[in-house]
Amino acid sequence: KINGDRLWDSLMEMAKIGPGVAGGNNRQTLTDADAEGRALFQRWCEEAGLTLGVDKMGTMFARREGTDPDALPVYVGSHLDTQPTGGKYDGVLGVLGGLELVRTLNDLDIKTKHPIVVTNWTNEEGTRFAPAMLASGVFAGMHELEWAYDRTDAKGLKFGDELKRIGWVGDEEVGGRKMKAFFELHIEQGPILEAEGKDIGVVTHGQGLWWLQVTLTGKDAHTGSTPMPMRKNAGLGMARMTELVHEIAMSHQPEAVGAIGHVDVYPNSRNVIPGKVVFTIDFRSPHQSTLDSMKGRFEAEAPKIAEALGLEMEIEVSGHFDPVTFDEECVAAVRGAAERLGYSHRDIVSGAGHDACWINRLYPTAMVMCPCVDGLSHNEAEDISKEWAGAGADVLLHAVVETAEI
Amino acid sequence: KINGDRLWDSLMEMAKIGPGVAGGNNRQTLTDADAEGRALFQRWCEEAGLTLGVDKMGTMFARREGTDPDALPVYVGSHLDTQPTGGKYDGVLGVLGGLELVRTLNDLDIKTKHPIVVTNWTNEEGTRFAPAMLASGVFAGMHELEWAYDRTDAKGLKFGDELKRIGWVGDEEVGGRKMKAFFELHIEQGPILEAEGKDIGVVTHGQGLWWLQVTLTGKDAHTGSTPMPMRKNAGLGMARMTELVHEIAMSHQPEAVGAIGHVDVYPNSRNVIPGKVVFTIDFRSPHQSTLDSMKGRFEAEAPKIAEALGLEMEIEVSGHFDPVTFDEECVAAVRGAAERLGYSHRDIVSGAGHDACWINRLYPTAMVMCPCVDGLSHNEAEDISKEWAGAGADVLLHAVVETAEI
Ligand SMILES: NC(=O)NCCC(=O)O
Ligand SMILES: NC(=O)NCCC(=O)O
Repeated sequence: KINGDRLWDSLMEMAKIGPGVAGGNNRQTLTDADAEGRALFQRWCEEAGLTLGVDKMGTMFARREGTDPDALPVYVGSHLDTQPTGGKYDGVLGVLGGLELVRTLNDLDIKTKHPIVVTNWTNEEGTRFAPAMLASGVFAGMHELEWAYDRTDAKGLKFGDELKRIGWVGDEEVGGRKMKAFFELHIEQGPILEAEGKDIGVVTHGQGLWWLQVTLTGKDAHTGSTPMPMRKNAGLGMARMTELVHEIAMSHQPEAVGAIGHVDVYPNSRNVIPGKVVFTIDFRSPHQSTLDSMKGRFEAEAPKIAEALGLEMEIEVSGHFDPVTFDEECVAAVRGAAERLGYSHRDIVSGAGHDACWINRLYPTAMVMCPCVDGLSHNEAEDISKEWAGAGADVLLHAVVETAEI
Repeated sequence: KINGDRLWDSLMEMAKIGPGVAGGNNRQTLTDADAEGRALFQRWCEEAGLTLGVDKMGTMFARREGTDPDALPVYVGSHLDTQPTGGKYDGVLGVLGGLELVRTLNDLDIKTKHPIVVTNWTNEEGTRFAPAMLASGVFAGMHELEWAYDRTDAKGLKFGDELKRIGWVGDEEVGGRKMKAFFELHIEQGPILEAEGKDIGVVTHGQGLWWLQVTLTGKDAHTGSTPMPMRKNAGLGMARMTELVHEIAMSHQPEAVGAIGHVDVYPNSRNVIPGKVVFTIDFRSPHQSTLDSMKGRFEAEAPKIAEALGLEMEIEVSGHFDPVTFDEECVAAVRGAAERLGYSHRDIVSGAGHDACWINRLYPTAMVMCPCVDGLSHNEAEDISKEWAGAGADVLLHAVVETAEI
């Protein structure tokens, strides 16, 4: 078993870097706080005897040697970057859980045949530089390195320039590493495990998603003096499409979810009929056919709503990934570990995207989930218990050691 | 008849101050541009032989003497401040139309028994400092002077401090002036006159309004990993209430209008279910009973929508005025002038609020409206023709001179 107190202390130590405004964290990718977090992780890795490699996306790979010099390493990890109003555990638990398993192996003087590499993927959150899971996406060949470097934040700063500024452009080509397997421990970010009183989620699948961005253009006009039949109210169009997105998701649930998250209304004034709205839709399902039929139904019905209101409509795809089926053997290793350790567990579908979803395209991959209070995440109030963190890291340790072979 | 070219030249001259980004104006109240506009108007007034008085709200009163020293003055005017993305005519036409009628009387050497006072009311728009029609509201006793001084803009600057900063705190008590009558010329800000090909709107009534601000609180959570039945989606609540507001207005139209204009979504992120929304409703009708029943129906039905979605709801009144019936004699003076001058005209209800609506509570008041292209206003593309402006100012001249007596 891992040392739960040590893991918790490290989580609390990391949470001091880039504190939020409400008890959580604001350690967005490629900020000074991110650099500070990376330096702390680097120091801890060196203290644990690991050797650090960094690739051109700034992803950190901390390696513990195996006994067989030719054996492919087993990778573990997640991300240290957070949302602007993020929690202390989303991503961090997976990185420091990986570090803790190495520390435990050191304590017990256990050697594995395959090396173990603890990984901190750059820019998982995607809030500062969209899209999410950027470095693992480049690693998996989903994006070009130059395209990633050109991503800009809200201030117009480029990913590539900011990575250089904080001093974390590595010399390794991205995606050059071969893996025997990849394991990611993460908080659920949903309410299922806590509601059912399970210690461990054995992640068998990841949902796919379609991210759409819709622009409706009507005509802004004075609310008081424009007769009802002469209006082109883009806000009303958005309202009807919000209901449509909800209906579409409800008609497929529990095998689908969907909502409108980001909304910009123009000119956004009390006495002006909205002349333009831009909003984003997030449709997800573990089934490819459901995912595509949700998008298809929206694309078929929304234009009718727009037309009836005299609105112009544009739909843009701003993100997409297919549903993921994790590797059977890796999943079995996670399930077996939970079973052996006596933790209650259930199979679960990851609702969120994770670095593991991209890596699964290349190498056998699985995820371990632990509950979080009220399913709350992407919120400074995100919370987990020391016991949940410890159980997750225990299962990670056993699944990884089984795969890395003693 | 007034000099249409001179009026147009003055409108174009004023429009150079505080230019917008798309051909219109950004001359928001108490900005440097507002001060510059005031200085230009002051110079023009002095050149026309008028005497300027300024009250503690910064409202400018430019007086042309009458032949009877004891006669109450007839007031004309509107406002020189604009929306942040406003037009060249909303408000400005009423002030410069008043100046033009004085210039015309000077040209023709016509003296009136009653003095004529051209007025520039401070902060009609209410965008920088809510509420709208602030100075005329204080004048009419609707607000306290100190309360008005304490209004803050989005940067936290106070109305009173900004008025001092631009140097326009006058020494007159607000509301001290007595009027024989008040006339305001304004663009319609709606499409009726243009659609019906009328030169002049004889404004008989002004709509009343209820401005409500609604806060819905649900729970922000990860869109991907939160099952549909466990959500408290404040954005969905807003969508349903947008539809409700529309239905309520439609059920009373053409005697009512209503829409949601301003929307804030929290945290406003692509992959987070909105946990909180704040939005504003603008309900208007010329009938008190309709106005109150619209508000009543919203207050009765909206909480059911909120409850069904597990949302907390707060409703706040952020503005209100009763429907206005303008003074019969003043309205007749406007109608008679249009008739005599051979302009096509119709009676019309003002959809928007105007300084005249507040002044009508104290003194006999009426308004003259001229068409605007596509009914567009509160938009930099707001447009009128020189002929429309001239016709409006002609009618204003005749109605005012009749009331001020030669
Ligand atoms: N884990 C996580 O929240 N990743 C961000 C991408 C997503 O919305 O799923
Ligand atoms: N005329 C005008 O737009 N005034 C602002 C107040 C309102 O919305 O009616």
